[in-house]
Amino acid sequence: MEEAKRRFESHSVIDKDWFREVNLDWAGFSLNLQIEEVLYEGKSQYQDILVFKSKSFGNVLVLNGIIQCTERDEFTYQEMITHLPMTLHPNPQKVLVIGGGDGGVVREALKYESVNKVVLCEIDQLVLDVCRKHLPDMSRGLDDPRVTIQIGDGVDYVRDHPGEFDIIITDAPDPEGVAEALFKKNYYRELKGALKKDGIASCQGLTTFTDMPYIKGMVEQCKDVFPRVGYATGNTPTYTHGIMGYLLASSIPDIDFTKPVRRFSDDDLKRMNLKYYNSDIHAASFVLPNYARDVLKGLVDT
Amino acid sequence: MEEAKRRFESHSVIDKDWFREVNLDWAGFSLNLQIEEVLYEGKSQYQDILVFKSKSFGNVLVLNGIIQCTERDEFTYQEMITHLPMTLHPNPQKVLVIGGGDGGVVREALKYESVNKVVLCEIDQLVLDVCRKHLPDMSRGLDDPRVTIQIGDGVDYVRDHPGEFDIIITDAPDPEGVAEALFKKNYYRELKGALKKDGIASCQGLTTFTDMPYIKGMVEQCKDVFPRVGYATGNTPTYTHGIMGYLLASSIPDIDFTKPVRRFSDDDLKRMNLKYYNSDIHAASFVLPNYARDVLKGLVDT
Repeated sequence: MEEAKRRFESHSVIDKDWFREVNLDWAGFSLNLQIEEVLYEGKSQYQDILVFKSKSFGNVLVLNGIIQCTERDEFTYQEMITHLPMTLHPNPQKVLVIGGGDGGVVREALKYESVNKVVLCEIDQLVLDVCRKHLPDMSRGLDDPRVTIQIGDGVDYVRDHPGEFDIIITDAPDPEGVAEALFKKNYYRELKGALKKDGIASCQGLTTFTDMPYIKGMVEQCKDVFPRVGYATGNTPTYTHGIMGYLLASSIPDIDFTKPVRRFSDDDLKRMNLKYYNSDIHAASFVLPNYARDVLKGLVDT
Repeated sequence: MEEAKRRFESHSVIDKDWFREVNLDWAGFSLNLQIEEVLYEGKSQYQDILVFKSKSFGNVLVLNGIIQCTERDEFTYQEMITHLPMTLHPNPQKVLVIGGGDGGVVREALKYESVNKVVLCEIDQLVLDVCRKHLPDMSRGLDDPRVTIQIGDGVDYVRDHPGEFDIIITDAPDPEGVAEALFKKNYYRELKGALKKDGIASCQGLTTFTDMPYIKGMVEQCKDVFPRVGYATGNTPTYTHGIMGYLLASSIPDIDFTKPVRRFSDDDLKRMNLKYYNSDIHAASFVLPNYARDVLKGLVDT
């Protein structure tokens, strides 16, 4: 299979009181956030970790020079990557989150009464520690008694837990270094194995405007493994070009990813404190502009 | 009516080889594009005008320090603001474009065989001249025999041409200085007057993530004038936070803005060279995330 290479290499800098995100993969385009205070700067065995208090987006987590989440707009991403698969399952009980050390996806998954077990498998203990301290609204779910935290490699974890989960959410950074394995066929194969027969997976799916060649390869690899694959997008202001993609996958032969089996009433939305996701957004998020739709035609079932 | 004030004031700078868009209205967030060559820098009686060749987004037009369009992603905006209203009309013949001196909207409107007259009313002759030179793919439609160019004030123009147009597209910069009048009730009243009874208007509608208080006021003022108002969004990477809003308005009492009366086949999309807009995107673009939907509830008919 032909596969586009990602040139991913960060040249982000702190320049006076601005964080300037610079990356060869979207060369010539840079998102900048103004810094009020650097809260943490360090290096784990896996990556550079930076947290700063920004002027207008709350606290910001940066890994290897790339913005992972900000307190102000994290809800857009956490809600979509979590509630897209969760609402497609009639009774989600066991949820696995790969990556996602900030805790935001866990917080969203715990909003379902049916859920009795959430495993977070994060490779980097330091990310967890730093987020617990500086992103309390995201990490607060981690102390819930239903949550188990596993420090380790996501590929190993799914391989070692066949048939266990209703929902698996891969909340990975972009495919560079340690995270690259989470965008490959071998991972999708293990992911499929770790799901129950009627399980559903969602994965961080990159950004359509820049990444279509890479996304095509990713979807092809996923489609080689799963009978049904879907691709959705949503707006997240602090991700490159303001778009984030979501890859959905399942072995359910006739699943329609665009139709949630659980639709939320206005009361549900309020009770669950959902600020982005609603049942209409769910369906609409699978509708792609031509430049993306044409590339994925015949590959996705949405 | 209570109305949010916009603090719009640009502090954008050219810093070595980067254009850094800085604005008090989205303080602490800055989109930066790398410059290969400054092609034009000048000042008309209305605004500062800058055009540069960027490293990865083609030529870029900047007015008063704010990015108006780039050659690489302009299609996302021009297609949406044009084809949303055009496809809602069974037989659009006479089209008025207010602002839009780059010519991109005119180019899109000319793609309909039914169109026999397009008037472009742009206040700033210098914008037209600069775009003709440096944004040829956008301005190429301006020489079409169906096009009339009018240099003047948009509010005056619509007041002086009652009942003339099937479609009016207000392709304005953000509401600052000369453009501010194009976001006010008085303008919507004149706009309604210039439309035929079954005419449809679309207007630049700002960006949901930052502007909801202002958008609410804008929609309220529009709804005071038009029986039917709609609000849609789309992704444009080089607009703030990657989102652009579109305001739709009409006097047709039962119009459903989400249902185009003309649906495009794949052949249509190819022939018209549409890279963003399709008939499914049309419907999906009116679905808003909760944080925007809740604010506009009861105000919009979409």
